[in-house]
Amino acid sequence: MNAPDPHTPLASAEKFAELLARTREPFPASRKAYIPGQLHTDLRVPVRDIALTNGELVSVYDTSGPYTDPNAVIDVRQGLASVRGGWITGRGDVEHYEGRAPVALDDGQKSEDATRLAQLRAEAAALQRQPLRAKAGANVTQMHYAKKGIITPEMEYVAIRENGKREWMAQYMADAGREKRLMGNPMGASIPRIITPEFVRDEVARGRAIIPANINHPEVEPMAIGRNFLVKINANIGNSAVTSSIEEEVEKLVWAIRWGADNVMDLSTGKNIHTTRDWIVRNSPVPIGTVPIYQALEKVGGVAEDLTWEIFRDTLIEQAEQGVDYFTIHAGVRLAYIHLTAQRRTGIVSRGGSIMAKWCMAHHRESFLYEHFEDICDIMKAYDVSFSLGDGLRPGCASDANDEAQFAELHTLGELTQVAWKHDVQTMIEGPGHVPMHMIQANMTEQLKTCHEAPFYTLGPLTIDIAPGYDHIASAIGAAMIGWMGTAMLCYVTPKEHLGLPDRDDVKQGIIAYKIAAHAADVAKGHPGARSRDDALSQARFDFRWQDQFNLGLDPETAKEYHDETLPKDSAKVAHFCSMCGPKFCSMKITQEVRDFAAQKGVAEAEALAQGMQAKAAEFQQGGGELYIPLKPV
Amino acid sequence: MNAPDPHTPLASAEKFAELLARTREPFPASRKAYIPGQLHTDLRVPVRDIALTNGELVSVYDTSGPYTDPNAVIDVRQGLASVRGGWITGRGDVEHYEGRAPVALDDGQKSEDATRLAQLRAEAAALQRQPLRAKAGANVTQMHYAKKGIITPEMEYVAIRENGKREWMAQYMADAGREKRLMGNPMGASIPRIITPEFVRDEVARGRAIIPANINHPEVEPMAIGRNFLVKINANIGNSAVTSSIEEEVEKLVWAIRWGADNVMDLSTGKNIHTTRDWIVRNSPVPIGTVPIYQALEKVGGVAEDLTWEIFRDTLIEQAEQGVDYFTIHAGVRLAYIHLTAQRRTGIVSRGGSIMAKWCMAHHRESFLYEHFEDICDIMKAYDVSFSLGDGLRPGCASDANDEAQFAELHTLGELTQVAWKHDVQTMIEGPGHVPMHMIQANMTEQLKTCHEAPFYTLGPLTIDIAPGYDHIASAIGAAMIGWMGTAMLCYVTPKEHLGLPDRDDVKQGIIAYKIAAHAADVAKGHPGARSRDDALSQARFDFRWQDQFNLGLDPETAKEYHDETLPKDSAKVAHFCSMCGPKFCSMKITQEVRDFAAQKGVAEAEALAQGMQAKAAEFQQGGGELYIPLKPV
Repeated sequence: MNAPDPHTPLASAEKFAELLARTREPFPASRKAYIPGQLHTDLRVPVRDIALTNGELVSVYDTSGPYTDPNAVIDVRQGLASVRGGWITGRGDVEHYEGRAPVALDDGQKSEDATRLAQLRAEAAALQRQPLRAKAGANVTQMHYAKKGIITPEMEYVAIRENGKREWMAQYMADAGREKRLMGNPMGASIPRIITPEFVRDEVARGRAIIPANINHPEVEPMAIGRNFLVKINANIGNSAVTSSIEEEVEKLVWAIRWGADNVMDLSTGKNIHTTRDWIVRNSPVPIGTVPIYQALEKVGGVAEDLTWEIFRDTLIEQAEQGVDYFTIHAGVRLAYIHLTAQRRTGIVSRGGSIMAKWCMAHHRESFLYEHFEDICDIMKAYDVSFSLGDGLRPGCASDANDEAQFAELHTLGELTQVAWKHDVQTMIEGPGHVPMHMIQANMTEQLKTCHEAPFYTLGPLTIDIAPGYDHIASAIGAAMIGWMGTAMLCYVTPKEHLGLPDRDDVKQGIIAYKIAAHAADVAKGHPGARSRDDALSQARFDFRWQDQFNLGLDPETAKEYHDETLPKDSAKVAHFCSMCGPKFCSMKITQEVRDFAAQKGVAEAEALAQGMQAKAAEFQQGGGELYIPLKPV
Repeated sequence: MNAPDPHTPLASAEKFAELLARTREPFPASRKAYIPGQLHTDLRVPVRDIALTNGELVSVYDTSGPYTDPNAVIDVRQGLASVRGGWITGRGDVEHYEGRAPVALDDGQKSEDATRLAQLRAEAAALQRQPLRAKAGANVTQMHYAKKGIITPEMEYVAIRENGKREWMAQYMADAGREKRLMGNPMGASIPRIITPEFVRDEVARGRAIIPANINHPEVEPMAIGRNFLVKINANIGNSAVTSSIEEEVEKLVWAIRWGADNVMDLSTGKNIHTTRDWIVRNSPVPIGTVPIYQALEKVGGVAEDLTWEIFRDTLIEQAEQGVDYFTIHAGVRLAYIHLTAQRRTGIVSRGGSIMAKWCMAHHRESFLYEHFEDICDIMKAYDVSFSLGDGLRPGCASDANDEAQFAELHTLGELTQVAWKHDVQTMIEGPGHVPMHMIQANMTEQLKTCHEAPFYTLGPLTIDIAPGYDHIASAIGAAMIGWMGTAMLCYVTPKEHLGLPDRDDVKQGIIAYKIAAHAADVAKGHPGARSRDDALSQARFDFRWQDQFNLGLDPETAKEYHDETLPKDSAKVAHFCSMCGPKFCSMKITQEVRDFAAQKGVAEAEALAQGMQAKAAEFQQGGGELYIPLKPV
């Protein structure tokens, strides 16, 4: 996956503190609400309620954490309040322990001088916690509990979160129930009308969903990744070359989740990597993923062949103790597959994949990740870190898509999934990359089959290669399609992909493009309630409730700005016309006349005239199902 | 369709003249070349040759017309040089005639005072030509010639243009021939490896493609719209409230075709509408479409019920004489269908559709467009104006998609297509609009069946409704999919859709998003050579030929700017690393090592190790076709 720096470094810590304060503003007309649990009465599951001007309340999934709650007191040097602390210790299967002794190398060979590093660590002093781990012989994964039939608070939390508030969706639910036309095509998914805690447990137990939630990340608001849940998105962040302050690092995270990132991967490389991670994890309400081999590589000065299992293992423990929720591990890049990439147009494009390929070639040995996979499982289950099995051999361009190397690795990832599940370690599978539209379905079909429905987590895919500067769009097309077909989480691509490091606005552009893709997938799958937000917005559009139209959108500010460019006056916000046709002629207005027409004398006359048409329509709609041929479910 | 103003009005004619001059700059490292005809030796078919730093020449389809040819002398007050003049008169079936006498009302009731209008018309004096029409009893449509077995210069032009220069594609063609994996899935299309003039003739004769080319628009560079050709895109422009100069109007057009618009629709309403159209048509190398009912409505002061067949008919002749290449005609909005929209969430959203609905309701009569359809055909065939049969009842939101009203109208459009074909009038069919992903295929399937493979021309479709400000992305997803499935032309959507009038940058954003969608469709369909540009760019990426990577992209400037933000130095343009991983570690570099590894001793060892894998791979790939299950072709 790509390793961006989500903004151009700004001048000062003060500037970032200010930025963070601004990012804490709630969305327009929005209020954070919390839904209590029933099995676990201390749950407070966040939703964002959007108050419409017609008195309706539209409730949407909220990834932004306490940052958008004006009542939350937040001090990034203290970290977020614990959500899960009591649940974790309450299970009685964890213990505090001394933890691994931090060493200077944790912050990279390129780290600052000792004074500066000490200063940085001091800043984060309050963020250093004594780690938890499973007691000897215990397994603390959500999958382990699920298999034992236990519905954890995390599972109930997820169930409530996925359902949201259903009252306002009643009209849509009724419509969809009445009209077959409005149902989705789940493409083989089995999405219930209501997500129960038991359903979540069952999905986690069978490996079809994961809840990434390290026991050392009690700040996380639990969420699920699985094909029978809402499609999720991931944003990548990385530390900047000139790290100025803790505020700066945290602000990147807060910016990403504000716009809807469900997960964030910290792909930092270089100096101060350990300390920065403390800052991020302690202040993150969303699961944090990493690629531990990046840090391990820093520890050996960037020389891949100098990597050892011991260094890697130590890095896993280091990060597990900090609270990282999932690790990308490229254990499918086996020695035997490397030569399969030799004739590719763009070879190996995954950074982790190429690190491991280089190691295997240099030593003429099987990958230590593959050979030590069960040892890795032992670490994962002691902290409940989830696997994100990396696709180190993913294609880097259209002409390398779906080739032997890619599918050989996928097959190994399926084999490793079963090993992980034997240890009750939660597992998802990373996928491509660059895939033309007509080759996307094969990826999903093969992943479902080979990896036994473990959640798929794809990067795009990009459908073409000729759009540098616009790869968020080229890939949103592929992401929407593969999301519909069953991918559980979509890793975003920004406009800067292939060109440079994304700035603040690029990150936002990438996230919005991916929220569009994920939502398009949810609507197509027929996730209950997904389309209800579209319907609410369309209704607002029809009713000329401009403010509601803005506020129900993914980016209210931008929508309002665009409207203001043409019709800046406040009165235009309630005007029953828009800039497209002007005040004199309006197609929406005509519809009201159509309704009057249909309701009054017009209807009899129209229906008489319609006789001829009806005969044809009957013929035309014979076997009406034909109109709505579903794509073949996979 | 939406009626945007493609830029914020700028200060002066001088400013626009300057803008136009800048827009005439060729793309970086690009040179306009012309391919001669063989049947018709005077053809000069434009392509854009991109010179790569490795000596290769990549040739791409070029919509920009003479504007990007530094050798072309262009004076917008004189209009472009004629391309087709000799071909048209050479056929001996046309005659010059006096033409309809222009009246003040042609420029709208809201037109300027007489002095100002006279001044505007004087500016365009040189652009007023004596019109041509078919001689009595003659039919001058491309379809008519095609059915008679005549290969016109227009058809050979299209064949050459669709093929481009194939030499540089040799490697790709060989790859695709060798590897089944790299073939597209045409979803029922029949795209030959080489487009011959005879193939074009046959496609036009059977109505599966159109070549919009009014005999009064000799400046047009012929192009084809059909599912067995490259997917095309349309951009909408409209005159601005404050028309300042001829340069301003023409610049909008030049800007749109520079970025790749294959067609432009002039959706102007309001004042000076006739005069502005002279400016646009005379300076346009791409086909121009209009919605004549918009102008007719202006003539009756915006009161739909005051429209008459006579006013409409006169407007058709007026525009046909000016050289408009296709007319959107909403003849499928029948009285009997109007009440079907009464219960929709957003009713009738097509402007043309609602005008006709209002007329039908007011008079309690069948649409005059439907009743006079054969009369309209008589006009169309006298000038070779193509039909774009409008979808006046298209859905305006997801929950109205694929409903009875929409498909009833589509059925009528199919019926009208056969009437048009009886007159040898070229015809395409407009489509939605707003359609969730899982309901897209039904649109295409039904259109192909109902309209007998007449080219489909869709607006998006938008896959979700919650992305105001980003509807170019929400719709590019649907556009790419429906393009793959068989839609021949995609009408763009800009970020301002639903919110306001697009400015210059919005137009560009919309076009680029749609070039991505169209190209993704071409690649998926396996159009010969479509993917070769991707391959050339990917190869440049792998070889660290940064300039080539930028220049092969859809927007070289933006790609270069994004790269410069992170690595501004010129030396970085030839550097064998990028900002993602930095100079020390590079996955692309490692691939070279993989190749050495595979080529040397490594391969034997790797293959020995691969034994175990091979057994599994064999099992995994049994019935290898399974990996590459095509989506069911329609």
